[in-house]
Amino acid sequence: MTDRPKTIDEIDTPAVLIDLDRAEKNIARAQAAADAAGVKLRPHIKTHKLPFFAKKQVETGAAGITCQKIGEAEVMADAGLTDIFLPYNILGRQKLERLKALHGRVTLSVTADSATTIEGLAGTFRDAAHPLKVLIECDTGGGRCGVQSKEEALALARQIDAAPGLFFGGLMTFPAPGKAAQAEAWLAATRDLLAANGLACETITSGGTPDMWRKPEGQVVTEYRPGTYIYMDRYQIAKGAATLDDCAATVLATVVSRPTATRAILDAGSKALTSDTLGLPDYAELVGEAGARVIGLSEEHGKVELPAASRLKVGDRVRVLPDHICPVINLYDQVYLISGDRVVDILPVAARGKLT
Amino acid sequence: MTDRPKTIDEIDTPAVLIDLDRAEKNIARAQAAADAAGVKLRPHIKTHKLPFFAKKQVETGAAGITCQKIGEAEVMADAGLTDIFLPYNILGRQKLERLKALHGRVTLSVTADSATTIEGLAGTFRDAAHPLKVLIECDTGGGRCGVQSKEEALALARQIDAAPGLFFGGLMTFPAPGKAAQAEAWLAATRDLLAANGLACETITSGGTPDMWRKPEGQVVTEYRPGTYIYMDRYQIAKGAATLDDCAATVLATVVSRPTATRAILDAGSKALTSDTLGLPDYAELVGEAGARVIGLSEEHGKVELPAASRLKVGDRVRVLPDHICPVINLYDQVYLISGDRVVDILPVAARGKLT
Repeated sequence: MTDRPKTIDEIDTPAVLIDLDRAEKNIARAQAAADAAGVKLRPHIKTHKLPFFAKKQVETGAAGITCQKIGEAEVMADAGLTDIFLPYNILGRQKLERLKALHGRVTLSVTADSATTIEGLAGTFRDAAHPLKVLIECDTGGGRCGVQSKEEALALARQIDAAPGLFFGGLMTFPAPGKAAQAEAWLAATRDLLAANGLACETITSGGTPDMWRKPEGQVVTEYRPGTYIYMDRYQIAKGAATLDDCAATVLATVVSRPTATRAILDAGSKALTSDTLGLPDYAELVGEAGARVIGLSEEHGKVELPAASRLKVGDRVRVLPDHICPVINLYDQVYLISGDRVVDILPVAARGKLT
Repeated sequence: MTDRPKTIDEIDTPAVLIDLDRAEKNIARAQAAADAAGVKLRPHIKTHKLPFFAKKQVETGAAGITCQKIGEAEVMADAGLTDIFLPYNILGRQKLERLKALHGRVTLSVTADSATTIEGLAGTFRDAAHPLKVLIECDTGGGRCGVQSKEEALALARQIDAAPGLFFGGLMTFPAPGKAAQAEAWLAATRDLLAANGLACETITSGGTPDMWRKPEGQVVTEYRPGTYIYMDRYQIAKGAATLDDCAATVLATVVSRPTATRAILDAGSKALTSDTLGLPDYAELVGEAGARVIGLSEEHGKVELPAASRLKVGDRVRVLPDHICPVINLYDQVYLISGDRVVDILPVAARGKLT
C-alpha cells in the first residue's frame, strides 16, 4: 500500500510498536529471575504470538513455550519450536487429531481436569509411538478450570497413569493474582498425597506475570509460565510488576478530533485497544501526556480525557499504553519492531486469531 | 485442516454462526422501515464486514453503504460496491492518498469536524476530476467527535464550500442512544442556520440500531446508518430493538470444564467474545440454557454461571449470544453461514482487521 516505513513518523495509525531493546531486556531479566529461583521458565506466547520472540525466549534459556490453542502450537512448531505445553482441556475429534499429528513432530504436553478429557486423550493416543504427558489442572483459587480438591486430582492422576498412551506429568495451575502462596500450599498438599500413592509429579507449573518476581516459598513450583512480562502493560504497572520504562508495546494513534478543551478523540477504539481493562478504571493512557487517559471506547474511536491545559491538537500522533496488551496484539496482522524511532522490522503476528 | 463441515455438528469451536434466514429477514425489515419513514438506508458494514451482505443490503434497497476505515471501503469497492460513506475525519498523507485513489473508483463521501481535517482534504482534492462530498460531523449529545454548536458547523461548511475540490454535503451525527429526538432538534436548528446562510444540506444522516424503528419527528434526517440490525445481539434485546429470535449471529463453543455444580468453562474467552459489554452486567448468555450467563472472561476461557440444576457437561456444545456482536466478528477470519443446522457457506471476513 505504502513504502515500508523507516521511522515511526512514517507509520500509518493505528499500529502496534514493539520496542525491541525493552522486550529483550524483559526476556533476559525474567530468565535471570527464574534461574535464580531455580525454576524452569516456559513463556506463554499468547502475549506476542510471534515465532521471532518465542525463539529468542528459548535461546535465552527457556525450557520451552506455552501455547493455549493447537493452532498457535502448529505455527510455533512450523517455525522450529520443539517443546510446547498446552495447558488446556483438548476435546473433540478435530482437535484431538491435530494434537496427535503435532505430537509426532514436537515434544508436547497438555492438561486435563476431567475424566471426559482424559478419556478423549486416552482413546486418541492409545497407539501413539510415544506417550503424551498429561498434567492435572488445579483450581488453587483462580476460580476458572481445575479440580477442586487433592482427592479429585488423585483420581484423575490414576486414570492418566492407567492409560497406555498417556503418562502422568504433574500439576498445573493458573493462580489468582496475588495468591501465589495459597496456590503453592494447595499444590504441595496435592503433590504429597499423590506421592504417598506412588504418583510422582515431574512438573508443577504455575503462571502469571504479576507474581513472577516473588521468591517462592519452598520448592513446590518447578516451572513458571508468564506471558505478559515480555511487553508489560498498564495492569502490570498497577500490580507493581513493571514500570513505565519496562513497557515495550504501545499503540501509535492519531488525534482525529478535539471537540472540547478536555476531550480528544483517537483513531484507536476497541478494535485497536480492546475493551479489556482487567479491572482498571480506564482503558489506556497516553505516554508522555500527563493526565491523559482513555476513558471511553467505541469500535473506531478512543475518547481521551485531557487536562484543560493540554496542547494536543488534531493530527498529533500519540503513543497509547493499553491496560492489557495480550488481547490488543491479537487485533493486529503485523507489529512494528522499533529501536528508538527507527523501524527495525515488520513482523506478521503469525499466531494471531488462532481460535482452535 | 479438516473436511468442510456440512452441518453445525461438524464445525470445530469456537466459531461464528450466521443464521442466513434471520439476517435476510432483518435486512428486509429495516429496509421496509426506512422506506415507510421516507429515509434512505445506508447500512454500516462494521457489523458483518462481508461483501456478501453489503451487496444484499444494496440489492434490497439501500442507497449505499457506510464504512469506518479506508481499508474497509477498499475491500467493498473491490467487491463491486459503488457508493460508500466514510463518516470519519481522514488525516495523514497515506490515508489521504488512498482516499483520493478510491474516490476515482466509487462515489465517496466523508465527514470532518475541524478546520485541520478540511485543510487536508482540500489540499488533496484540489485538482480532483470531480469534487468530494464532505459532511460536517455534529456532536448532538453522543459526546464523541463533532462540532459543539451550529455556529461552528456554519464556519466549517463555509470552509468546505470555498475549497475547489470539495463540496458541502450536509450534516452527520451519531446520536446518544435513546436521544434521537434531541439529535434531530440539534440537526434541524443547524440545517436552518446554514440554509439562512445559503448553504443547503443535501444529506442529514444519523445512525444507531436501537433508535432505528422509531418514527422520526418531522423530516430532519434524510438517511440512516444502522449496523447491528443485520445480526442483532444481547444489547439490542436489552434496548427493546430486537428479540432473541431476531438474533442471527451466535458463537458456537464447547464446554471444556465443569469444576463446580454452578460453574462451566467454555473454550470461548475474550479472544472469541471480546470484553465489550456495552454496559450490560455480564458478557453473554447461552441460548436455550435458561439462566446460564457468561460472567467472566480471560483470553481463552469463558466462565459461565449456571443454575445448580444444569445438566451441561464437559464436551457439550452451546450457542453463545454476545452482548455486542460487531467487535466479535472482527476476531474471526471466517464465519459459517447456516440455515437451520445446515452449513450453507463459509465466508472469509474480508474487511476484518482493517485498522487504517
